[in-house]
Amino acid sequence: MMPVRGGYAGDTARKVSFEAPRKFTTVFKSHLKETFFPDDPFYDFKGKSLPVKVKKTIQYFVPIFQWLPNYKVKLFLYDLLAGITIASLAIPQGISYAKLANIPPIIGLYSSFVPPLIYAVFGSSKYLAVGTVASSSLIIAATISTKVNPTENPQLYLNLVFTATLISGLIELVLGVFRLGILVDFLSHSTITGFMGGTALIICLHQLKGIFGLKHFTPHTDVISVIRAIFQNRKEIIWESTLIGLIFLIFLQLARFVKQKKPKLFWVSAIAPMFVVIIGCVLAYVWHAEKHGIAIVGELKKGINPPSLKNIDFDRKYIAAPLQAGFITAMVALAEGIAIGRSFAILKNEQIDGNKEMIAFGLMNIVGSLTSCYLTTGPFSKTAVNYNAGCRTQMANVVMSLCMMLTLLFLAPLFSYTPLVALSAIIMSAMLGLIEYDKAYHLYKTDKFDFIICMAAFLGVAFVSMDVGLMLSVGLALVRALLYIARPTSSKLCNIPDTSLYRDVEQYPDATDVPKTVIVQIGSPIYFANAGYMRERVLRCVRDEKANRLQGDDIKYVLLDLGGVSSIDMTGVETLVEIRKTLEAKYIKVVLVNPRLEVMEKLIVTNFIEKIGKERVFLSIEDAIEGCKFSLSHERYL
Amino acid sequence: MMPVRGGYAGDTARKVSFEAPRKFTTVFKSHLKETFFPDDPFYDFKGKSLPVKVKKTIQYFVPIFQWLPNYKVKLFLYDLLAGITIASLAIPQGISYAKLANIPPIIGLYSSFVPPLIYAVFGSSKYLAVGTVASSSLIIAATISTKVNPTENPQLYLNLVFTATLISGLIELVLGVFRLGILVDFLSHSTITGFMGGTALIICLHQLKGIFGLKHFTPHTDVISVIRAIFQNRKEIIWESTLIGLIFLIFLQLARFVKQKKPKLFWVSAIAPMFVVIIGCVLAYVWHAEKHGIAIVGELKKGINPPSLKNIDFDRKYIAAPLQAGFITAMVALAEGIAIGRSFAILKNEQIDGNKEMIAFGLMNIVGSLTSCYLTTGPFSKTAVNYNAGCRTQMANVVMSLCMMLTLLFLAPLFSYTPLVALSAIIMSAMLGLIEYDKAYHLYKTDKFDFIICMAAFLGVAFVSMDVGLMLSVGLALVRALLYIARPTSSKLCNIPDTSLYRDVEQYPDATDVPKTVIVQIGSPIYFANAGYMRERVLRCVRDEKANRLQGDDIKYVLLDLGGVSSIDMTGVETLVEIRKTLEAKYIKVVLVNPRLEVMEKLIVTNFIEKIGKERVFLSIEDAIEGCKFSLSHERYL
Repeated sequence: MMPVRGGYAGDTARKVSFEAPRKFTTVFKSHLKETFFPDDPFYDFKGKSLPVKVKKTIQYFVPIFQWLPNYKVKLFLYDLLAGITIASLAIPQGISYAKLANIPPIIGLYSSFVPPLIYAVFGSSKYLAVGTVASSSLIIAATISTKVNPTENPQLYLNLVFTATLISGLIELVLGVFRLGILVDFLSHSTITGFMGGTALIICLHQLKGIFGLKHFTPHTDVISVIRAIFQNRKEIIWESTLIGLIFLIFLQLARFVKQKKPKLFWVSAIAPMFVVIIGCVLAYVWHAEKHGIAIVGELKKGINPPSLKNIDFDRKYIAAPLQAGFITAMVALAEGIAIGRSFAILKNEQIDGNKEMIAFGLMNIVGSLTSCYLTTGPFSKTAVNYNAGCRTQMANVVMSLCMMLTLLFLAPLFSYTPLVALSAIIMSAMLGLIEYDKAYHLYKTDKFDFIICMAAFLGVAFVSMDVGLMLSVGLALVRALLYIARPTSSKLCNIPDTSLYRDVEQYPDATDVPKTVIVQIGSPIYFANAGYMRERVLRCVRDEKANRLQGDDIKYVLLDLGGVSSIDMTGVETLVEIRKTLEAKYIKVVLVNPRLEVMEKLIVTNFIEKIGKERVFLSIEDAIEGCKFSLSHERYL
Repeated sequence: MMPVRGGYAGDTARKVSFEAPRKFTTVFKSHLKETFFPDDPFYDFKGKSLPVKVKKTIQYFVPIFQWLPNYKVKLFLYDLLAGITIASLAIPQGISYAKLANIPPIIGLYSSFVPPLIYAVFGSSKYLAVGTVASSSLIIAATISTKVNPTENPQLYLNLVFTATLISGLIELVLGVFRLGILVDFLSHSTITGFMGGTALIICLHQLKGIFGLKHFTPHTDVISVIRAIFQNRKEIIWESTLIGLIFLIFLQLARFVKQKKPKLFWVSAIAPMFVVIIGCVLAYVWHAEKHGIAIVGELKKGINPPSLKNIDFDRKYIAAPLQAGFITAMVALAEGIAIGRSFAILKNEQIDGNKEMIAFGLMNIVGSLTSCYLTTGPFSKTAVNYNAGCRTQMANVVMSLCMMLTLLFLAPLFSYTPLVALSAIIMSAMLGLIEYDKAYHLYKTDKFDFIICMAAFLGVAFVSMDVGLMLSVGLALVRALLYIARPTSSKLCNIPDTSLYRDVEQYPDATDVPKTVIVQIGSPIYFANAGYMRERVLRCVRDEKANRLQGDDIKYVLLDLGGVSSIDMTGVETLVEIRKTLEAKYIKVVLVNPRLEVMEKLIVTNFIEKIGKERVFLSIEDAIEGCKFSLSHERYL
């Protein structure tokens, strides 16, 4: 089909393209590509020879082949320092979060040995430090405790934790392989801020058990149950434990304060937890802490991770719990891990491939679940320490892993004296940094609906449960997204004086009406969810204009600016037909301006263009107004 | 705040507006209004005195006060004819659909007496004819049969049908009062086409029971169960019944064929069902049909609707079924009724207020459920007959109602001889017209995804169940809507030679690049679900351009055309910050073009405009390119 000229006679260049629609398969392929490969991962492969392609493919899927061959000794010195620093954080965090997940503390140490090695091979972020995280630990504990009591049946409980880790890893792997990173897109920053804040709050409250040295507590995670549990067991509070806990907590907070004031002293905050653990161990050993009612971690066996394939348990009776835990932790860990990896990549202006990260996370959790590790991802605190300590490549994770191996082989028993109160103080201090009041306030100031989405997650997690909070918040975000769809903005355009520009009259109140013409800009795809609304908006706008215009200025043309309409479905086309019918009955002609590629194709294939006439489609508002003026003056002569 | 000039020095008029953001309450009010009052129903009230306002309010909520005072005798003649015609259709349809819903046939006749009167008072469509519909009848039967067997416990079953009708009416009323017409927007034309087709198919197959004169059948509604039931009971087939059924069916189809060929002979098709019923009654009476194994309707008592308040049953044991039936039928009946009312209003160029229609439907079903009626709405066939018969106002419904009253008072017993096979033929004939092959083919031709949505509803209803089909289809439509959100179109713009227009280079392949500049058009709201994708698209576009441009044409500027971005959330703003950081690190400057009102407000309040500089925001692409050229030449002199 040849391009046909629009009605504007002044300029031969201003032709509207009425090309025949592209083939369905072409469009479909392009859509598939945009949906699943938005980052165009095979860009580098174009026009390369086969051996280069094979090499690039391997490098793409296993990034270690990309960075290791170019690795230099000079880089290793940086990575060594960073690796040792994060290892010193990994030991107390590993033990603490394992306690949070109600599993033996040694599992926390195991989890910092194998997964970092896997990540070093498959991961693409240079700065991400692998480790266990508090939120996932708590989700696992909260979900699996509903089926199995961790104190009554610790072995079964542990088996289900490994199973949940395996499931989580499989989900991550599948999402990565099928490039479903799109799912993570639906967790907005606001949801994550609220969710993290709420989780941090309940984890903090749970640590009061350790600080106060309580023996009885509640398995529930909501604020009210926790406060009630503390109140009911107030007679068990041990003042020595409380005092030591508070001192540790103040010390840790001071260390964080130092880091905030002087970022160069980040190492103070990085080694503070290790320092607290060592002081705690010494105190407990010298002072015979257990006699004063201060509980310690207890037995920590020497030796590296035992295999745990036989522990995986798909028993029908319990499978629902690890499935649920695996799914939620996978989504949360992915969203957190990818967001964190990306944040640090931006600081150094590098790109992170979310789908590849998912595969790396998946593999590290699958292998982890078979080697006595539980869920790991890229925690913010550890990654920040890694980055500040000057790490250059994934080698830092290898160094940390080796440090953990040495610890497991030789030093583990020393840590058995760690008092639980020290761990509680470490967790609490870490969590206090995750409640981002300022970010919530910023949201309140800039976007009320984002604030509501954030608070829904925060309050839902704090007062009901973690999954309810998450779902509530995601649900609200989706409702908002659907409202965006169902009620898109459309505005009346007017001429900005002395220019040929036409802009929203609400934004530019000085703009003036065009005689006998109403210009409506439609600013979103037109389809079933908003087609009815669009019709109302356009017709209402015409009605209002009819009432407001001066006498003698009858509306003769309605210009629909479709420049912002990226696609249209059948209901949308039918709505355009309806609008046209209604307006033509009032002797008003409908003129289309700048329909985009997909819309034009749909309008051609449904014969709408034929019905309205090609001379009623223009490339710009200016052209359309010229065209209308021309036909009006022509009519007068007839 | 004073508007500040953009960087383009040539023209003082081309100022970008940097007005301080509107107040939250202003924006919120406007959003609420757009969400719930898109049709601006109180437009006529502006500037009127109080008594006029009161009168208009009453007229608004009770349309009969609007049309009755101006009613003329001349109009009545038209309405009388139309009313009698639809009454002659209401009798056979009422009896048939009541049998379909497994309730006594007299209930079907009752249902065409009270609800039309209520609609005549509160309804706003002149052409809509009230009556029972096949799809809702079947939904009610399918849902309530799962809890109570209609043959074993007919009274309880009937009570639950009334309860479902009441619930359906309440839902319609509440949706109308709270102006939640927006929910109906999410049922697309494609979904309704598929759903209607699937329902028609299974209703047709169910009628084979009546045509073949079978005694045993299946309560399931899916195609496979029905075919299996016919096959298993094939020995029960009565050839007399089958023969009569086929003759009736061919006659009815011929009548429809006549109407299609000569629309003026619509009355042939309108009275054909009544004719079939009368012939059937005479045959059954003369020929003693029951002795030949042909079942008849049986006892039909004289008298108008008894009250049925005492029948309403909210027993906990059964309430789930009427709740489910009420909800689904309310949504389907609303979508169908509103769509039909609107279609006929468009033919005469009038407007229908969907929310007011919901209130009318709600009231007629609430009152109906208390006066022994079951679910009614505005069926397509009856409305089309009403329109073709020349009805002018809601008075036609009153006439039909009076005809039904006379029938109930004097003629009802005559219809007790109606053979079931005649009813089956009538239902089957009506249903065959609802399977719109051509529409499905049209969808296939024009929009493959709409076709899939349609087929999901059709196959889901036909092979699984009605609610599964409906949910599957709505779910797919929502996934598509969310994909529209998550993967919006963005395109590279180029200059159309010899003009100052910039258009998508894919659509206008002759367009040429602007030296040292990449122009990217973003065509949808930017927010959490698509922010990551947007970043990829923009950065990928810049990367590709860098590779493709000739030597010496380094990219210095990226122009983001935000003219199509109607709103932005916090994640979106953060993404713009990320894009800016990444590009600035490559010595590429980001320039914004034509941010719209809401976006500009958000960019000001988050200080993005301050960071990027007001001189980097332009009103049009032309201005921006001039501005960039100006700074480039300026740089060279430094």
